[in-house]
Amino acid sequence: MFNLYTFVMKIIIIGGVAAGSKAAAKAKRILGESSDITIYTDDTHVSYSSCGIPYYIEGNFEDYETLIVRTPEEFEKNGIKVRIKHRVTKIMPESKQVLIFDMENNNSFLESYDKLIIATGARPIVPPVKNTSKQKIFTVRKIEDAIEIKEKLKSSKSAVIVGGGYIGLEMLEAFVKNNVFTTIIERSPHLMSVLDEDMSDEIMTRLGSINKGRFKILTNESVISFEDDIDGQVLTTTETGLKIPADLVIICVGVHPNVEIAVDAGIKLGKTGAIKVNSRMETSIPDIYACGDCVEENLIITNTPVWMPLGSNANKEGRCAAINSSGGFDEFHGVLGSAVTRCLKVTVSMTGLTEKSAKVLGIETITATVTKSDKVSYMPDAKNITLKLVADKKTGKLLGGQAVGSGDTDKRINTLATALLAGLTAKEFANNDITYAPPFSPTIDPLLNAAQILISKLEKDSEPAPRP
Amino acid sequence: MFNLYTFVMKIIIIGGVAAGSKAAAKAKRILGESSDITIYTDDTHVSYSSCGIPYYIEGNFEDYETLIVRTPEEFEKNGIKVRIKHRVTKIMPESKQVLIFDMENNNSFLESYDKLIIATGARPIVPPVKNTSKQKIFTVRKIEDAIEIKEKLKSSKSAVIVGGGYIGLEMLEAFVKNNVFTTIIERSPHLMSVLDEDMSDEIMTRLGSINKGRFKILTNESVISFEDDIDGQVLTTTETGLKIPADLVIICVGVHPNVEIAVDAGIKLGKTGAIKVNSRMETSIPDIYACGDCVEENLIITNTPVWMPLGSNANKEGRCAAINSSGGFDEFHGVLGSAVTRCLKVTVSMTGLTEKSAKVLGIETITATVTKSDKVSYMPDAKNITLKLVADKKTGKLLGGQAVGSGDTDKRINTLATALLAGLTAKEFANNDITYAPPFSPTIDPLLNAAQILISKLEKDSEPAPRP
Repeated sequence: MFNLYTFVMKIIIIGGVAAGSKAAAKAKRILGESSDITIYTDDTHVSYSSCGIPYYIEGNFEDYETLIVRTPEEFEKNGIKVRIKHRVTKIMPESKQVLIFDMENNNSFLESYDKLIIATGARPIVPPVKNTSKQKIFTVRKIEDAIEIKEKLKSSKSAVIVGGGYIGLEMLEAFVKNNVFTTIIERSPHLMSVLDEDMSDEIMTRLGSINKGRFKILTNESVISFEDDIDGQVLTTTETGLKIPADLVIICVGVHPNVEIAVDAGIKLGKTGAIKVNSRMETSIPDIYACGDCVEENLIITNTPVWMPLGSNANKEGRCAAINSSGGFDEFHGVLGSAVTRCLKVTVSMTGLTEKSAKVLGIETITATVTKSDKVSYMPDAKNITLKLVADKKTGKLLGGQAVGSGDTDKRINTLATALLAGLTAKEFANNDITYAPPFSPTIDPLLNAAQILISKLEKDSEPAPRP
Repeated sequence: MFNLYTFVMKIIIIGGVAAGSKAAAKAKRILGESSDITIYTDDTHVSYSSCGIPYYIEGNFEDYETLIVRTPEEFEKNGIKVRIKHRVTKIMPESKQVLIFDMENNNSFLESYDKLIIATGARPIVPPVKNTSKQKIFTVRKIEDAIEIKEKLKSSKSAVIVGGGYIGLEMLEAFVKNNVFTTIIERSPHLMSVLDEDMSDEIMTRLGSINKGRFKILTNESVISFEDDIDGQVLTTTETGLKIPADLVIICVGVHPNVEIAVDAGIKLGKTGAIKVNSRMETSIPDIYACGDCVEENLIITNTPVWMPLGSNANKEGRCAAINSSGGFDEFHGVLGSAVTRCLKVTVSMTGLTEKSAKVLGIETITATVTKSDKVSYMPDAKNITLKLVADKKTGKLLGGQAVGSGDTDKRINTLATALLAGLTAKEFANNDITYAPPFSPTIDPLLNAAQILISKLEKDSEPAPRP
């Protein structure tokens, strides 16, 4: 064996959580010794499971290091340099250099690159609320957040969570399981407002039935201030005048893409405000790639831009950016908007368009909602799920689905996601041959049941009007 | 409202378990009062879940009536006549009549039909083995079987199951959970011989690790006789001379389609030996439809005939036969060969072609097998699954998959089944946006992981040969 390349490819990766660490590992596997790969990050850790933080706080495992997929030392062993606490402060595309600030030694230096991969991720949004509390109000993103919240939790009996989306619900579970009375404050009229209202209501109803006085959900409420309470707690005040004292406050009202450094370098953003990339993860500037939570995606169903900052996407995008920046060819065609979360016994899962998001895009839809047992109902562990399918009224094409319940929802949504990927109509999907046995599904799965309802509605619509 | 039809459509349905009862109910819903629908069956029950019998015997529910979806009385209430213990002995297509034998009153009579639906199902194969035992040797098919086996089980400490397929494994679970020491005798070298050998081995290994002396699996063994033992047990003797005494013996070595009456009427069978129907469930004789376990299906992936006598297929076929015989138009395009079963903590699921079944069809394949956690491994309930994907070496098209494990296998197979339905290649499937959260799947799902391996292998194969 001999090395065909005399050229050593120098790749700089900014950010090292999901997309960045994946890109580094993949590029090294492709290029081997003919590469010089460095991850710069202002974080204290790389390659960790941000999505796992709620489960660490909940107590599913004891050691926060379990969240870490690969340590800097492990990267170094594989020939990848990792510089934590190093903030890239400027990208200079013309000279193909980046300016780096060493946060520990307080000095800056320049580094050149052949290829640059931006994987700067996203940061939690902190609303501009009056905050006179001396106590820390937490967000959930980094390893430090995880450690600090878990420590604080030990001495907490009550908590406030601002925001009722994915992370809000996951933190609710974590706190309730630790016997901490928790109040969720959600600005919109619904939890998980990304879903259609009827499905959000389903979540509320189902959470209500298992509440047992362990938590409170306030919707249509905005926080206006945090203050120190006399008992050493934080007092959260809402617009309607509610005052909620709690030992621990978490803000999870969404995230914002870290795009400032890209914008500064002249890299174009997309309509969503995240970095615009093509299917090869190339930005608007040559030799600069971007991937992960800082980029926007193509929604496969409609070929419209979306921003879906999720770990699963980051991983695939990191891989694609690595292959292309290493001289290979790979394409990432986009996302379907698939996601899942769990709050106590209620799982919430979705893919594709909702009725309301289709409406925004000007698509006329029909929908079918079924509430059914997830297995044959005589099985002792049969549980109930509510599934909603959305299809294009004109073409019959499946557009999306949402599922809420104590039973098996997420994998059914995956089956649907595959149908969306392939562009199947309700009719094509309805005779899908999916597995059946009493411990796994009813004879007619809720998915096929709902698809049949869609077909009936579509056929009804296409019948000629009755004679007068 | 007035009735547009003066003509009353007379539909006779032979058989009333899954396909027959579905066909009756659907036809009645379509035609309403302008129909005269009768189910004739030599069985004592209609509309029951044959697939649920192992779970009844296991003790998941107490009352056998739970297995019954609709009683004859419920059908009658909806205007559908049900004649149990009535065997149709002859079909006379020229006069459009059937000859029926009333098994209770011992008399025969003729009935005419406008449309005839054959849903005669299948019957267990009983091998031609010397049987001098006075005790009943059971098969697992009908409600009576369920009741008798459950009764016998009460006084049993040991059992022999002949046949290690789906039902054999389900009965093994049922018996072991009732503390009955069970021996499975399987003629072929593998349990679940429908799978590839490596995946069958996986089942053996996994069952072995949870056995704890509760059961024995003998492969490569054929039964040659059943005799009465001195202790009042049945003594099962195998070809190699093993003698196994047991209180209870079950035979589940497969089923045979009930096609004799159709053959006698001149209806054509397919290559598989089951009744041949077109996509509208029409047989070779006008106005005679067939559906359920007695018909063969089209395997969508290859457009070749298969026989998949499963409840899920029967249901869809019954529906299709009803729509078409009622004057509507519907098509059933075929099956993918999806199935699932559970034996204790081991689930086994498959769809599409195996490596070996593809070989029989002359298709050159590549495969990828991964053994991975079904969730992020730090979740306390993470379990392990082994997943094998099969793709066409020439085209990269996905052909099938098999999954074995204690974790979530069946719904992943459903996701794959949808890809097979749509004819996706490994490459098209690999970037599928399926849901991710730590309690539900690892960041890279085993499905996508295996698809990536397929792609690597495909790319390797398509690389030009190295220079000499």
